[in-house]
Amino acid sequence: MDTIKDYLGKNRERFLDELIQLLKIPSISADPAFKKDMLTAAEAVKKSLLDAGCDLVEVCETPGHPVVFAEKIKDKDLPTVLVYGHYDVQPPDPLDLWDSPPFEPVIKKTKIHPEGAIFARGACDDKGQMFMHVKAMEYMTQNDVLPCNVKFMIEGEEEVGSAHLDWFIKENKDRLSNDVILISDTGMISREAPSITTGLRGLSYVEVEVTGPNRDLHSGLYGGAVANPLNILSQMIASLTDENNHITIPGFYDKVEQLSDEERSKMAEAPFNLEEYKKKLDIEDVYGEKGYSTLERGSIRPTLDVNGMWGGYIGEGAKTVLPSKAHAKISMRLVPDQDWKEITELFKKHFESIAPKSVKVEVKPHHGGFPYVTPINTIGYQAASKAYEQTFGKTPIPQRSGGSIPIVTLFEKELKSKIILMGFGLDTDAIHSPNEHFGVWNYLKGIETIPWFYKYFTEMSK
Amino acid sequence: MDTIKDYLGKNRERFLDELIQLLKIPSISADPAFKKDMLTAAEAVKKSLLDAGCDLVEVCETPGHPVVFAEKIKDKDLPTVLVYGHYDVQPPDPLDLWDSPPFEPVIKKTKIHPEGAIFARGACDDKGQMFMHVKAMEYMTQNDVLPCNVKFMIEGEEEVGSAHLDWFIKENKDRLSNDVILISDTGMISREAPSITTGLRGLSYVEVEVTGPNRDLHSGLYGGAVANPLNILSQMIASLTDENNHITIPGFYDKVEQLSDEERSKMAEAPFNLEEYKKKLDIEDVYGEKGYSTLERGSIRPTLDVNGMWGGYIGEGAKTVLPSKAHAKISMRLVPDQDWKEITELFKKHFESIAPKSVKVEVKPHHGGFPYVTPINTIGYQAASKAYEQTFGKTPIPQRSGGSIPIVTLFEKELKSKIILMGFGLDTDAIHSPNEHFGVWNYLKGIETIPWFYKYFTEMSK
Repeated sequence: MDTIKDYLGKNRERFLDELIQLLKIPSISADPAFKKDMLTAAEAVKKSLLDAGCDLVEVCETPGHPVVFAEKIKDKDLPTVLVYGHYDVQPPDPLDLWDSPPFEPVIKKTKIHPEGAIFARGACDDKGQMFMHVKAMEYMTQNDVLPCNVKFMIEGEEEVGSAHLDWFIKENKDRLSNDVILISDTGMISREAPSITTGLRGLSYVEVEVTGPNRDLHSGLYGGAVANPLNILSQMIASLTDENNHITIPGFYDKVEQLSDEERSKMAEAPFNLEEYKKKLDIEDVYGEKGYSTLERGSIRPTLDVNGMWGGYIGEGAKTVLPSKAHAKISMRLVPDQDWKEITELFKKHFESIAPKSVKVEVKPHHGGFPYVTPINTIGYQAASKAYEQTFGKTPIPQRSGGSIPIVTLFEKELKSKIILMGFGLDTDAIHSPNEHFGVWNYLKGIETIPWFYKYFTEMSK
Repeated sequence: MDTIKDYLGKNRERFLDELIQLLKIPSISADPAFKKDMLTAAEAVKKSLLDAGCDLVEVCETPGHPVVFAEKIKDKDLPTVLVYGHYDVQPPDPLDLWDSPPFEPVIKKTKIHPEGAIFARGACDDKGQMFMHVKAMEYMTQNDVLPCNVKFMIEGEEEVGSAHLDWFIKENKDRLSNDVILISDTGMISREAPSITTGLRGLSYVEVEVTGPNRDLHSGLYGGAVANPLNILSQMIASLTDENNHITIPGFYDKVEQLSDEERSKMAEAPFNLEEYKKKLDIEDVYGEKGYSTLERGSIRPTLDVNGMWGGYIGEGAKTVLPSKAHAKISMRLVPDQDWKEITELFKKHFESIAPKSVKVEVKPHHGGFPYVTPINTIGYQAASKAYEQTFGKTPIPQRSGGSIPIVTLFEKELKSKIILMGFGLDTDAIHSPNEHFGVWNYLKGIETIPWFYKYFTEMSK
């Protein structure tokens, strides 16, 4: 019987190559043009799970993109781990900022990844991290060391708000029953400071449209006399934050959990170098809510970001147009105990109320999710912590992340089990950005750590 | 000998068809992809001027798009009219808002144009209006009633700020010598209320770029902690106007001419129906600088309009990105005695000064032009007024327009002659917008009116 280290040594190249093949499929869930590629990706995931030793694997239809479900049931009396991940990826644009095409993966060395990193859309988020679980499964079945039952639920709509996962879970509650849910779709602080995510921010994502005149106008003839939707939208967006970068939507902060001084000083102990942070981003200064540190602004405080904005003439050269419409995509990251549906309503009501009479405003909610905080005194967390100690030689730091996996609160509510967020990516991996990548070291370290989690979780569950 | 009315009766269909052929050429000066089409259009204009009876016609190279120059010199002692126009057009986008393709002209009846209007990019601005002069010339030479010398200067860069016309005029001063400059590149109030433009606003057009982090970031991990260029740009743009819609750039109003109460009450006599104006644009209310009427806001007051804005994810669906960059195209319409170069400098300095330390800002001036006001006690204006009386049966109203023809002040400065702005378009012709059109009635009325101007101008110059 091989240890996981032996097995990794023997299969390193194949593990990399298999991931690269998966990364070549442009499974962009947001764009209907890639619907066929979504199916191709789902089938590829299905095959990999069969190869990894699952007994039953199924590409399950949903009203949107399919979910890949798989399981290996050893014994009904043993505990069951449910692995969640996603095979869809973010749109890759702006394409011109990629050093190599997003769906032609290449391995390149970087300062942070001296062993090389795989550059491709989805390398880290989430194909690479999801595939660690497939390969860990392969190791355990091939070497007959799988200590418990395993289920996989790999969806294709995470990047579009898990539009139909709610439906899928409710339809398949019994089939998905489990004792713990394991997800690798977050990051860790660094190689030297491994961490486990214990909190996620919630999300409310909306799209707004401001309409002025019924057609684009000549800005010379009408400028100054007719409301310009771009000027108005800028003013409306600007008014959503005050001079201290507090969000001005009435009621927005009502349910925000206030951390105790003790909790805040504990947070402040996490390794963080502000100068290095600014240098990496090439910014002269950070920017955010008054009274909070950068780490706090990015994790325990809610935000309001414009994710996209457009209107008027955006081509080469000059066009003197007073546009009929202006658009923005705006997202708010939420923290406990904000309710995303309530926040979406508050936003809509407020945004409509601040529009001058000269324009019409439409607010379209996209999707959202609740914030999530997981306790660290559970068997699942303790098993994960011991697994990291085994492979990193250090106790991982529990850390609240600024990101969102909107679906986690649903998991807890519907499936009644705790979620363990074992993420192996780094902040610098440029997920959702051009040149997304995932360190080869991180990928292999993930595969190495996961079987230890199964072992400890099964032992501790007895 | 035919009267102009007879000649129009016989040649109506041909005059329409020839314009339609010219409108089929996509001569978009702003976009380098259409360079070849620009040459095709220049050659077509050349041919039309030769056919109209000019003795000498030349497509003159410039460092940019060429200028078509033509002349017919009858007698050096007779006065000379210089006709200025342009064969380039605005970019047609957004294409999906056109009811028919912008370069496939169609004639359709509208409420305002019961005889039909030609729908095409450039129909009114300025191919249609420029071509009226070509056809009026044809009538005068064919019927031997041309009373004076004529020169044509038809450029290809008006929609990109007449980038090289300055150079061309300085290089060809003698050749361009004239007694009056005639331009049809403006509008009139209505069929029932013909008007001659006596003032134009100036222009300063700039493009701004706000850069935050050196790459697009995940808005969950960085949102709230790093300046978002789209939020910042919105705030910066919003701060450029105050609660009364005054522009806040220091020094911006210093040189703005204040009209006397008498002048303002005279302006207020121009026919204008606010309810109809709002209805046509489908807006609930107008919007503009406090203390000024809609007509004033659109003509005697300076403005600041965002003509285009973009950044982040603007595709289908949602992407939670904190973009690295945000962009805007901003234009200011200027009034006497604002200096566009000075205003551009004031803008740049102010805009850079209001940027927070967390972002970098770049301001790129595009182009500009001085505001212009023409006196009405000149022979040129009087001749034009008499020509309108002849064909409209009414004395035209002198009117200051909100638009800009940046080059007119240069004409006056370099060529030492007055400019007459005989425009036959209507406000509703949607120039610079989707579904630009030019009334068949207006086109023919222009051709009918122009020869009368030549006649009266020559007579009054004796």
